[in-house]
Amino acid sequence: MRRRNFAFGFLIILLVTLFHLSALADEGMWLLDQLKDLPWKELQQRGLQLSPDQISKLKDAVVIIDGGTGEIVSPNGLVLTNHHVAFGAIQRASTPEKNYIKEGFIARSLEEEIPIPGYEVTFTVDFKDVTKEVLEVVKEGMTPLERFKAIEHRKSELEDQAEKEHKNIEASVVEMFSGMKYYLFLYKRYKDVRLVYAPPASIGNYGGDIDNWMWPRHTGDFSFFRVYADKDGNPVEYSEKNVPLKTRVFLPISTAGVKKGDFTFIMGYPGRTYRYRSSYSIEYHEKINYPFQIDLYQSAINTLEAVAKKDPAVAIKVSGFIKGLNNGLKNNQGMLDGFKKLKLLEKKKQTEKEFLAYLDQHPDLKAKYGEVLEKIGKLYADLKTYADKSNYLRAIMFSQLPSTVYSAYRYAIEKEKKESERDPAYSEKNMERRLRYLEIRNAMYVPSADRALLKVFLKKALRLPPNQRISFVDEIVQGKSGAEAEKAIDQFVDNLFDQSQFKDLKSAVPLFKKSKKELDEIQDPMIEFARKLNKELLPLEEKNKEFEAQISLLRQKLIRGIYEWKGGLLYPDANRTLRFTYGDVRGYTPRDAVIYLPKTSLKGVVEKYTGKEPFDAPEKLLQLYQQRDFGSWIDPELNDVAVDFLHTTDITGGNSGSPVLNGKGELIGVAFDGNYEAMTSDYQFNNDITRTISVDSRYILFILDKFSDFQNLIKELKLVK
Amino acid sequence: MRRRNFAFGFLIILLVTLFHLSALADEGMWLLDQLKDLPWKELQQRGLQLSPDQISKLKDAVVIIDGGTGEIVSPNGLVLTNHHVAFGAIQRASTPEKNYIKEGFIARSLEEEIPIPGYEVTFTVDFKDVTKEVLEVVKEGMTPLERFKAIEHRKSELEDQAEKEHKNIEASVVEMFSGMKYYLFLYKRYKDVRLVYAPPASIGNYGGDIDNWMWPRHTGDFSFFRVYADKDGNPVEYSEKNVPLKTRVFLPISTAGVKKGDFTFIMGYPGRTYRYRSSYSIEYHEKINYPFQIDLYQSAINTLEAVAKKDPAVAIKVSGFIKGLNNGLKNNQGMLDGFKKLKLLEKKKQTEKEFLAYLDQHPDLKAKYGEVLEKIGKLYADLKTYADKSNYLRAIMFSQLPSTVYSAYRYAIEKEKKESERDPAYSEKNMERRLRYLEIRNAMYVPSADRALLKVFLKKALRLPPNQRISFVDEIVQGKSGAEAEKAIDQFVDNLFDQSQFKDLKSAVPLFKKSKKELDEIQDPMIEFARKLNKELLPLEEKNKEFEAQISLLRQKLIRGIYEWKGGLLYPDANRTLRFTYGDVRGYTPRDAVIYLPKTSLKGVVEKYTGKEPFDAPEKLLQLYQQRDFGSWIDPELNDVAVDFLHTTDITGGNSGSPVLNGKGELIGVAFDGNYEAMTSDYQFNNDITRTISVDSRYILFILDKFSDFQNLIKELKLVK
Repeated sequence: MRRRNFAFGFLIILLVTLFHLSALADEGMWLLDQLKDLPWKELQQRGLQLSPDQISKLKDAVVIIDGGTGEIVSPNGLVLTNHHVAFGAIQRASTPEKNYIKEGFIARSLEEEIPIPGYEVTFTVDFKDVTKEVLEVVKEGMTPLERFKAIEHRKSELEDQAEKEHKNIEASVVEMFSGMKYYLFLYKRYKDVRLVYAPPASIGNYGGDIDNWMWPRHTGDFSFFRVYADKDGNPVEYSEKNVPLKTRVFLPISTAGVKKGDFTFIMGYPGRTYRYRSSYSIEYHEKINYPFQIDLYQSAINTLEAVAKKDPAVAIKVSGFIKGLNNGLKNNQGMLDGFKKLKLLEKKKQTEKEFLAYLDQHPDLKAKYGEVLEKIGKLYADLKTYADKSNYLRAIMFSQLPSTVYSAYRYAIEKEKKESERDPAYSEKNMERRLRYLEIRNAMYVPSADRALLKVFLKKALRLPPNQRISFVDEIVQGKSGAEAEKAIDQFVDNLFDQSQFKDLKSAVPLFKKSKKELDEIQDPMIEFARKLNKELLPLEEKNKEFEAQISLLRQKLIRGIYEWKGGLLYPDANRTLRFTYGDVRGYTPRDAVIYLPKTSLKGVVEKYTGKEPFDAPEKLLQLYQQRDFGSWIDPELNDVAVDFLHTTDITGGNSGSPVLNGKGELIGVAFDGNYEAMTSDYQFNNDITRTISVDSRYILFILDKFSDFQNLIKELKLVK
Repeated sequence: MRRRNFAFGFLIILLVTLFHLSALADEGMWLLDQLKDLPWKELQQRGLQLSPDQISKLKDAVVIIDGGTGEIVSPNGLVLTNHHVAFGAIQRASTPEKNYIKEGFIARSLEEEIPIPGYEVTFTVDFKDVTKEVLEVVKEGMTPLERFKAIEHRKSELEDQAEKEHKNIEASVVEMFSGMKYYLFLYKRYKDVRLVYAPPASIGNYGGDIDNWMWPRHTGDFSFFRVYADKDGNPVEYSEKNVPLKTRVFLPISTAGVKKGDFTFIMGYPGRTYRYRSSYSIEYHEKINYPFQIDLYQSAINTLEAVAKKDPAVAIKVSGFIKGLNNGLKNNQGMLDGFKKLKLLEKKKQTEKEFLAYLDQHPDLKAKYGEVLEKIGKLYADLKTYADKSNYLRAIMFSQLPSTVYSAYRYAIEKEKKESERDPAYSEKNMERRLRYLEIRNAMYVPSADRALLKVFLKKALRLPPNQRISFVDEIVQGKSGAEAEKAIDQFVDNLFDQSQFKDLKSAVPLFKKSKKELDEIQDPMIEFARKLNKELLPLEEKNKEFEAQISLLRQKLIRGIYEWKGGLLYPDANRTLRFTYGDVRGYTPRDAVIYLPKTSLKGVVEKYTGKEPFDAPEKLLQLYQQRDFGSWIDPELNDVAVDFLHTTDITGGNSGSPVLNGKGELIGVAFDGNYEAMTSDYQFNNDITRTISVDSRYILFILDKFSDFQNLIKELKLVK
């Protein structure tokens, strides 16, 4: 299969000049088939020396690894990514005797590399526009929901077809621009991935949750893995016989350093953005969704911390979960703060007002787009009548054992349908993945935490307004309120866990093999609870599908309308597919009278040192600074080792671990964060304040060389000056 | 009397060149008779256009006002100072109907100016070196304590003598360099001071406790008073017949603005610094004093806030107290943090080590100074055996009614002695002032708060180690511990307040007229408590005097020794006498990769706005910004109104409200704070980070003109461009 580089429909028009006039600046997460339409002359002037084709070829070195992005940096399958992307893997590699999070890990030979079951590295093999193939199933007169289901079905067909055509390939059809376009992506997923190197958390996670999202930053957020395959390079499960994957395309590491104004670009797999959303969506998030999530995350953190306090072994098990929740909390809080501070809702409303005024002057366009916003508004008004209930049910599903048993129950129901009519979440392919991951999650399962979470969230559901009550919660409390109601919930949950035969996630695995009839015959309160959950969830899911089906069509239309109004070059919202983004090294002014410089130094690591986590830099690192033992990794401008730097590239979650490349395509850093002031950039990019935070490649080399004495790994890399 | 401008003994030597070589930089709070010894050529190159004589003459425009400094800015006794210096006065001028803290205050005519009873403005009339006159009473063979008492006595004599020689003059003999020098200062104290203008706290205290000590700052920290006198200009108590004081010397206001690098100087009344202290003193503060004070202030704040929560009227009364405590808390916490962060103790120890090494190489100096440090160490070791007890007794004295009754009791004891042998705190002159202030304090007295404070601190005294127990606390708890002991204390305090005939501070005033015998005849638990306090306090006071007597001599010697080692030009530690300090407008780097610019703008006020105290800028101010209605007060560099600025002058508490002058002696700002990073500058000045924070004179004019429409006041000022 060859990638077809044709134009991006009506969206990529010839008005590239408009791009210069627009406020887009360095905004944009571009698909690789959009590269040639970028303002190439400008990019060259700013320092880009590669052609679109040369950039496209680098895709073979940019992989999905766990929740982030990684890059191939040697011909022998060596992958560089973030420490925080590797965190779960390092945790799983650790034992009670060997805490690699705390101590770091060095495999001084291939034999010492630690396999991480369930940890995968995925390559993008190819992709193409399949809009026509997908949309040919849409017929006149279909309702939005019928249309939605037909498309879902068609996507599955195309995926199955592609997987039959290619060996060892996973196919995925994804929508762009809310379904205006569809792309087929072909992936190769490697399942034998081994840990090679991790710095101690006091380097790799220096600053911890306090510094998360913050600049100035001093985190050495990197780790190394290696991809293994069978001797023919096929992606196979772990085996002792596997060998390092031969990787023809890999990124050289620059030791030349960065300075203000240097051109940079990033390739990676950004997760989700919402750049084309309406004011109704913004309002929903500001008023309902973020406040709910903040409460959800904070409650879960409090609950888990209380459980962790009682037992150090439990503390280790839930640490990754808490870390994730803290990140989510800070993210949601930052979003909400940012929405308010940047007055996003007000601005969106203003833009829409101008759009409507423009339509008033253009009757032809008004006929096409005049009702879009109003219809979106109505859909959101309806969403609000069941959003709280949906949210609280989702919170209840935070409790892992009940939600696992529910998955088995639901899968049994879906199994009775034709594969084409199943909820895609319960397709055979997806269930296989989920079951594999279940065993890994089981190692971190803590029944007391699980029980506590369910209690907390059932109690919270007591707050729901009359029109959104969850019936089984009402059943549990039977009209009681206050402390009485809470007591009833405690008793219900204790009974649920005490009386159930299922004690951990693994024990529920056999359920996934059973039919609904067989499940219904088992007398177990956990299965009974699953049945009750199902009764509440199914109708809501249908409502959500209806909402999605309708809103997608309207969002498409809105994008078209705004495009017809403003013109320019558009990129699709992030959806975890491979993207290219560029910008330069640049600081910013976070507030009046304060300037943030774009590079930090080892001096700053020492300044932040308190001896206590998360500012507990290792003694040896402090000594290296005192003795100015910087090797050849010194930054001449700083007269110190550079640690992290800022640039104007456009990234989001999922980009973590992405390679940061200079104009020659050499790796100058690894992206690991965005800045707090620009957290809302998922909704709106702002060139003045939106920055990527990356760890400097020379800090990585300095740590490997001077701190970890791991010259062997450096030898495997291709260093360029 | 004429000020004699002779040299400063052996300290002011000819090695002025050394000054350039030393690390002193802009450090120094210089006495006015030291001016001519400063590096004059350098100052002229940096922009100073005045001669030492011209600067000296400005002293007539620089006054003590309450706890701060003020400056005369019109020929009719108009005084400019900080809003936070004026806070207590504005509070006292307020009524339940008119809250001038919240609303601000404008007297649009002389008639509307509000007299503030007890509020005073003090001019430095003259000063001279009286070292010889003081030290002539020191005789061979005196013990340090005898010497100390003889000097105290002699100082009182010289003061009385000066006050007899001059009409309407208060005299004060103060020591410099721990008693190496003594200066006689003559003051004229005006007692009819009226409030002319205060901005609302949402300007004058914008940022409140959160921004206190912080940069970037956006506080319009200024207010105006007017000094009144009888028709001959004499300082008299308030009378309707009084007229504005004619002030021949006053400061013109510059509207030219400041920019980076501009020369500035300050005259004012800095309170206390400890620049020549030994490592033992640093250690005592780091390990004992600051941790104790932090606990003391935090406990008092918590207690008062709890009481304030119950009653808005109480909240108003204790707000000033809480404000002061918060300032103290932040100050102490910042000091402690700064000590640790800047490793002050380590550095002092290192310097002392080098000093001792130098002495080893110079036997003549070793004979003179070899034992100083060791002796200081021994004194501090002894101090530690009763420091905790002293501190807890001081905390107990936070409770106002018991401490007032104690003062009366103690005064009765002291009265029986000859004036010359009395504790100077209980001299007739001091008692008169204290009684006057008592009536003012009474207006803010809240019995429930007083009672709560006493309970809290008596309970804290339970922690004292066996060798430092307070006997009346042990009596109260009678061997009980834990909750039982606390209950006993609650009962004791409730009984003390319930059974006493004294219900507020005013009710205790008649006690000050009684003899000890008469007091002993009154049956009242509050007087009984005073008796018990006295039993504990007197021996500790003697110990403290002994400590002071000995430590002063050793500190003098240490200063001499270090001077003989390092040379240079020395200035005496701050002691609330008039000082001159210079520097330039300059930002700083608070930490790696962050630059603080030296000027803030109105834009930043709007950025910080949350609508909630302390970021509740008035609507009108926000509008002025939106409309860019800046009048002629715009800063061309910022293209906005400048609000506050930073400069490298050397100030401390007491300097609040000091005039900031440019090289021509025109007022460009009013100093109101130091920066958090340099809080330890009371112990050690650091040119890289020690900064004065001042409000820009143009912000003052902008607020008067555009916000308050108070052009009349502007007309009274002398504006220069």
